[in-house]
Amino acid sequence: MGILLASKSPQRHAILTQLELPFRVVVPEVEELEMGSPSEVAIHNARLKAAAVEGDAEEGELVIACDTVVDVDGIPFGKPENADEAFTMLALLRGRVHDVVGGLVVVDPATATAQERTVRTKVRFRDFSDELLTRYLEGGEWAERAGGYAIQGTGAAMVAGIGGDYQNVVGLPVAALLGLLEETANWDEIARRARATA
Amino acid sequence: MGILLASKSPQRHAILTQLELPFRVVVPEVEELEMGSPSEVAIHNARLKAAAVEGDAEEGELVIACDTVVDVDGIPFGKPENADEAFTMLALLRGRVHDVVGGLVVVDPATATAQERTVRTKVRFRDFSDELLTRYLEGGEWAERAGGYAIQGTGAAMVAGIGGDYQNVVGLPVAALLGLLEETANWDEIARRARATA
Repeated sequence: MGILLASKSPQRHAILTQLELPFRVVVPEVEELEMGSPSEVAIHNARLKAAAVEGDAEEGELVIACDTVVDVDGIPFGKPENADEAFTMLALLRGRVHDVVGGLVVVDPATATAQERTVRTKVRFRDFSDELLTRYLEGGEWAERAGGYAIQGTGAAMVAGIGGDYQNVVGLPVAALLGLLEETANWDEIARRARATA
Repeated sequence: MGILLASKSPQRHAILTQLELPFRVVVPEVEELEMGSPSEVAIHNARLKAAAVEGDAEEGELVIACDTVVDVDGIPFGKPENADEAFTMLALLRGRVHDVVGGLVVVDPATATAQERTVRTKVRFRDFSDELLTRYLEGGEWAERAGGYAIQGTGAAMVAGIGGDYQNVVGLPVAALLGLLEETANWDEIARRARATA
């Protein structure tokens, strides 16, 4: 009973832990889409991840899958392959606003229903110096992160402000997720269980 | 050399640690203002805290002080005294937008100069149920928090989205702080030191 999270992302695990929700993880093995409209890429990849683990769900478990894409004027920024590429991405993002798009899929295998949401958060970067950027890259935090930064890490030093759900930038649109869970039949049971074990 | 943080707040310590800035803490003993215009209360209390520890600064240290106030239509919401008061506050904040005001003071004792900023972040709460609110209060996170919640904790479950600096809601307006530090003469030295010890 609880949540089956289809994600290898430590950030998503951390968010569910922060919310004190009961969950377990199955890492989905999927070939992620990287090109296309950022919103479509995000929701497509979330569907792939949910589908990959749905067969592992136990009775009463909800499957949650999410994909995060950085959207720069309609161009999806993925994970940089090396520090030079991260420098290029972050130098482009500096002093301007970009979107972070979270594609969220919640599947209830018991009723064979899926609910989907696409959530956008605007992120404004400060107009920081090359020196700060170089120092940031030396820390290695850019790796395995869409757009080459982690807002919940040292990357916070690059951010002037955001508009929308902060947790969506970290990796999981929490407000949308809780909204979907609260509409779901067995959510009350999950919430009771969370309280009982807290 | 570095930052002298005038704060007993674990959240502010955590933010400077997240930014990998070198700092030490002196807890200011002050009688904080609680009533008045939220912006004035925040900057007034930050000044008090900075003044209380300025004499402890070593050569080259910058003194940083901050105060966070929840602003509900011009009324400052402080720390609730008990769970019932926290319930009242959070029920009032539910389904609407409030402001979080951070008053920030950076003092450079070497040049006897002080710089000040007041930073506002808008926070929209979800229209959550009494049951979720009661469950939140049982966790005890409301204590010692302006407005009765911690956005970086389980309180994230109450938040629909924000507009502005997320870290300001946690307890320290990071973008404004870094902007001030970058204008300060010995910041380059502090940044070099941070890099050398990272």
